[in-house]
Amino acid sequence: MAPVTRLVLDVLKPHDPSVVTFTRQLSDLEGIDGATATVIEVDESVKTLRVTIAGSDLDLESVRAEIEDLSASIHSVDQVACGSQIVEDPLLGR
Amino acid sequence: MAPVTRLVLDVLKPHDPSVVTFTRQLSDLEGIDGATATVIEVDESVKTLRVTIAGSDLDLESVRAEIEDLSASIHSVDQVACGSQIVEDPLLGR
Amino acid sequence: MAPVTRLVLDVLKPHDPSVVTFTRQLSDLEGIDGATATVIEVDESVKTLRVTIAGSDLDLESVRAEIEDLSASIHSVDQVACGSQIVEDPLLGR
Amino acid sequence: MAPVTRLVLDVLKPHDPSVVTFTRQLSDLEGIDGATATVIEVDESVKTLRVTIAGSDLDLESVRAEIEDLSASIHSVDQVACGSQIVEDPLLGR
Amino acid sequence: MAPVTRLVLDVLKPHDPSVVTFTRQLSDLEGIDGATATVIEVDESVKTLRVTIAGSDLDLESVRAEIEDLSASIHSVDQVACGSQIVEDPLLGR
Amino acid sequence: MAPVTRLVLDVLKPHDPSVVTFTRQLSDLEGIDGATATVIEVDESVKTLRVTIAGSDLDLESVRAEIEDLSASIHSVDQVACGSQIVEDPLLGR
Amino acid sequence: MAPVTRLVLDVLKPHDPSVVTFTRQLSDLEGIDGATATVIEVDESVKTLRVTIAGSDLDLESVRAEIEDLSASIHSVDQVACGSQIVEDPLLGR
Repeated sequence: MAPVTRLVLDVLKPHDPSVVTFTRQLSDLEGIDGATATVIEVDESVKTLRVTIAGSDLDLESVRAEIEDLSASIHSVDQVACGSQIVEDPLLGR
Repeated sequence: MAPVTRLVLDVLKPHDPSVVTFTRQLSDLEGIDGATATVIEVDESVKTLRVTIAGSDLDLESVRAEIEDLSASIHSVDQVACGSQIVEDPLLGR
Repeated sequence: MAPVTRLVLDVLKPHDPSVVTFTRQLSDLEGIDGATATVIEVDESVKTLRVTIAGSDLDLESVRAEIEDLSASIHSVDQVACGSQIVEDPLLGR
Repeated sequence: MAPVTRLVLDVLKPHDPSVVTFTRQLSDLEGIDGATATVIEVDESVKTLRVTIAGSDLDLESVRAEIEDLSASIHSVDQVACGSQIVEDPLLGR
Repeated sequence: MAPVTRLVLDVLKPHDPSVVTFTRQLSDLEGIDGATATVIEVDESVKTLRVTIAGSDLDLESVRAEIEDLSASIHSVDQVACGSQIVEDPLLGR
Repeated sequence: MAPVTRLVLDVLKPHDPSVVTFTRQLSDLEGIDGATATVIEVDESVKTLRVTIAGSDLDLESVRAEIEDLSASIHSVDQVACGSQIVEDPLLGR
Repeated sequence: MAPVTRLVLDVLKPHDPSVVTFTRQLSDLEGIDGATATVIEVDESVKTLRVTIAGSDLDLESVRAEIEDLSASIHSVDQVACGSQIVEDPLLGR
């Protein structure tokens, strides 16, 4: 099947582990070329992160399992890119 | 006839299948080089996705059939690009 | 005379034919390298499209005839580029 | 003297000739590499166009004569670029 | 001393000479590679222009003398770039 | 483990040491290719800086220790990028 | 120590010397590749400038001394970039 090449996830993470540990562990999964986590909101006990992951063949279930191992959870999947080419949305931000 | 090279679709999708499964299946169709789905709105039973698909010769009917096989439906076609060259709209976002 | 190399048109189109059929047919005209149609507004019986067409020597009358053959009509011409070089407007969007 | 290499003009044009005829005729003048006309406003009897013209040595008086031959008139000159290099304004749009 | 390589000036100019004549004359000065004048405001007897001038070694006093010879005056100097490299301001427009 | 390649930090810094000394010392740490500090807010006794650090294998704990040695503290980690490729967030700023 | 490669300064300058003289003198300091001064505000007796300076190894104290020699003063340091690579802030302007 066509590979997933970029994922944008909304993630709820308790304050521990830290954003750095979280992002490093995540980007350490097989098939991940890079991961960027941006802190969107900070509440008393959780942080909301937007996490962008790029790779040649991403597996959301491994990503989800890793995120849950890190005591966090995927609140929503915001964007998914698949195929041999990353296609940008021409109407985004217009 | 001139090939369709990029489609931007507004899609209504029940929560199952997931956005990842949906986008992978879609981008697996013959002639699709890449597909990106962005979640625009989340309602109780459906998600609204904006789906951008690129390829050298896209067939909307195969895309629609695949989308319906995936229990989703095309709410509207937002943009269509055809021909040997993708032309961007110079007035978009002005 | 200097060739027309890009046209941006405001087009009113009944719901049939579809945007895809409309754009493919249009971009199939001689001298058209690419055409992109963006849906701007949807009313009960018509859609308003902004259509950008690029080519080395576009003929608006053939474009208009084709658009009318497709049951649609040009509501207005929004931008015209002519000559050996496409010149962008430096004041657009400022 | 230093050549004029880009002109941005505000032009009032009656509905006849059309924007396409107007822009083609204009870009057909000697020394013009390209011309782009964007419709800014439509009134009962005139259209306001912003016209950007590029060339290696533009002559505003020939441009004005041609515009007047086409029953239109220059309402204002909005931007003029001269010299061996087109310089963009770093403060525009800030 | 380090050369001035780009100047952005706010200029008040009577309606005569025209913007084209003004910009051509200005860009004809020794050491000027290009000049772009954008009309910012039009009042009864004057126009406010923002004038951007680029060159390898600009001399503001020659520029000012030329502007005054053209019956205009520098209302303010808005930006000055000097040295072997034009440095853009990373905070502009943020 | 996958290396951290870019960190964006919100830092509270007393007025002494200066922003220059602070940024130089920080970018002098092993493995740091560059650091940029932007002053976001100035209060009576502290400055809020947003600090972006790039390198091939950044260590937040060394960065934090250095920041504390410089009498400052990390108020929050705003973004973390890891892996062999820096991935930009396609939804940022839309 | 890691070199300072770009400085953004908020500078208060009396009307004399002029912005041009000020910027030239400043960019004439050893190690400065370019300096750009943008006028941000004009008051009765002073101008507020934002000054961006680039070089391979900038020395703020020499810059400050030169600015004070020119009868001006650094009101604040807005941004500092250090190291072998200029890192841009991915969150600026979002």
